[in-house]
Amino acid sequence: MARVAAGPEIERLIQLLARLPGLGPRSARRAALYLLKRREQAMQPLAAALAAAAAAIRNCSTCGNLDTTDPCAICRDPGRDPAAICVVEDLADLWALERTGAFRGRYHVLGGNLSALDGVGPEELNLGRLFGRLGPASELILALNATVEGQTTAHYIAERAARTGARVSRLAQGVPIGGELDYLDEGTLTAALKARRAL
Amino acid sequence: MARVAAGPEIERLIQLLARLPGLGPRSARRAALYLLKRREQAMQPLAAALAAAAAAIRNCSTCGNLDTTDPCAICRDPGRDPAAICVVEDLADLWALERTGAFRGRYHVLGGNLSALDGVGPEELNLGRLFGRLGPASELILALNATVEGQTTAHYIAERAARTGARVSRLAQGVPIGGELDYLDEGTLTAALKARRAL
Repeated sequence: MARVAAGPEIERLIQLLARLPGLGPRSARRAALYLLKRREQAMQPLAAALAAAAAAIRNCSTCGNLDTTDPCAICRDPGRDPAAICVVEDLADLWALERTGAFRGRYHVLGGNLSALDGVGPEELNLGRLFGRLGPASELILALNATVEGQTTAHYIAERAARTGARVSRLAQGVPIGGELDYLDEGTLTAALKARRAL
Repeated sequence: MARVAAGPEIERLIQLLARLPGLGPRSARRAALYLLKRREQAMQPLAAALAAAAAAIRNCSTCGNLDTTDPCAICRDPGRDPAAICVVEDLADLWALERTGAFRGRYHVLGGNLSALDGVGPEELNLGRLFGRLGPASELILALNATVEGQTTAHYIAERAARTGARVSRLAQGVPIGGELDYLDEGTLTAALKARRAL
């Protein structure tokens, strides 16, 4: 990145901002300028929010979620069914599911997918604690990405979870709401056709 | 913005990140996730860099640049010609010119353009101190945007600067390097034609 005509504090700030996903060197400079011009209204609050979050946030030792408490708010919530456990790859997926408001069970965040190519085996994932949470009364919902790695991971978990007696399901695959058939790939259409439901 | 399944610390962080230019709610969540997963390597350093910049940066009382010292490093640099003053609208323009390395004079940052529509008069800009910096030996280079507001501002400054005896110039307008004539607008082509140079 080209140097800017500014002291090392600004240079360092731009460098750190440029590492955020979605920001490159140019947009990092714009973001830095925005903050520099609003030092009291935007820059100090952001610094404080980052420091507060960095200090307060920890991994939930039950499910792998991030929260200020351990166990996390979801694992502590007595209104949420502890027998229904939804397995997600990443915290972002947990957030996406929570935004729907459609799931009232608990989660288990793997932190990745099995991938022989990237050298990610079962030990690299938050898997050991998952099977300890399962019993014959459990329902395990595999909400993993519909990619090769996601489905490999789902297979592996389903096989091992079967030994605990838990029921195992996965998210339905099919036509997305608002989706036009003409624009859908063959794989999705095939899956939707196979899983057709009587009206 | 939809709530995420996280404590108020994370919510607040996402809200503040979403205000940065170039980041919307979705990319702010992605950036927050990136930071939350790298609390020691990315989040704490960014918090520290923001706090350090917010505390150390001040406006140069001579030129309006932002730096950790007042006057700024450019205004203090004895190797830079104090008689050549380049007027820019914004700090971003100063940074852009500095990246070229082609200018060895000093700057004056206006902080905006004259705009009757937005109610920006000469008093709203960092203009008063500009004319005090000029004398008969000065050269004033107007590096303002080639927009209506930029050119209005340039006109206003040129007129008032003429009374100080300073020479006034503006950036050349013409075909950008690597530009294809076919894709250029008529205004640029007309300007390039009028300002043609003998070979």
